[in-house]
Amino acid sequence: MKKSELFKEHGFKDLTFSNYLVHESEHMKVINFNFKAGQQLPVHSHDLDGELILTILEGEGEFLAADGVSMPANTGDVLVSEIREPHGVKATTDMRVLVTIAPPI
Amino acid sequence: MKKSELFKEHGFKDLTFSNYLVHESEHMKVINFNFKAGQQLPVHSHDLDGELILTILEGEGEFLAADGVSMPANTGDVLVSEIREPHGVKATTDMRVLVTIAPPI
Repeated sequence: MKKSELFKEHGFKDLTFSNYLVHESEHMKVINFNFKAGQQLPVHSHDLDGELILTILEGEGEFLAADGVSMPANTGDVLVSEIREPHGVKATTDMRVLVTIAPPI
Repeated sequence: MKKSELFKEHGFKDLTFSNYLVHESEHMKVINFNFKAGQQLPVHSHDLDGELILTILEGEGEFLAADGVSMPANTGDVLVSEIREPHGVKATTDMRVLVTIAPPI
């Protein structure tokens, strides 16, 4: 059993979004990405089976998808995506995101 | 790709915490539990391999563990537990929790 206080432990970086490993096992990988306003994880995909979950812990922005599609991403919103589907995130305000990937990549 | 707005879509119940399935696949299960102040998921465990992640999306309470141990659980806190380890949650204020289980049970 391991507790992490993401809001206290993990900050923001100026050059690009910050990236903290929360948990990794044979079953899943959990990462915390923190974006300053304007930063983004560009749309990308991996040719692998499995899904990822993007959970907005704090802040406002957009979920990014294929073909320039975007959807509002606000605190408490969850996006489920296949790992092989194009996906990304863009922050309008400072934004904290939890990313869960199963199986881990 | 599927987006859920947990804070808008999912409410609270008087009798016991509310329980909404967000995603289920061969790789993982994602559930949203909403607790009114005073409600709890009592300490329990399952004799299965795998881990669960409890993410506090909003509110204050306690993570519960074996032998009466508890830890503060506040917005942005994440608890990683083996499925076979005793675990639970107790809400002090109204609290929204995302539960991710891999592999799914």
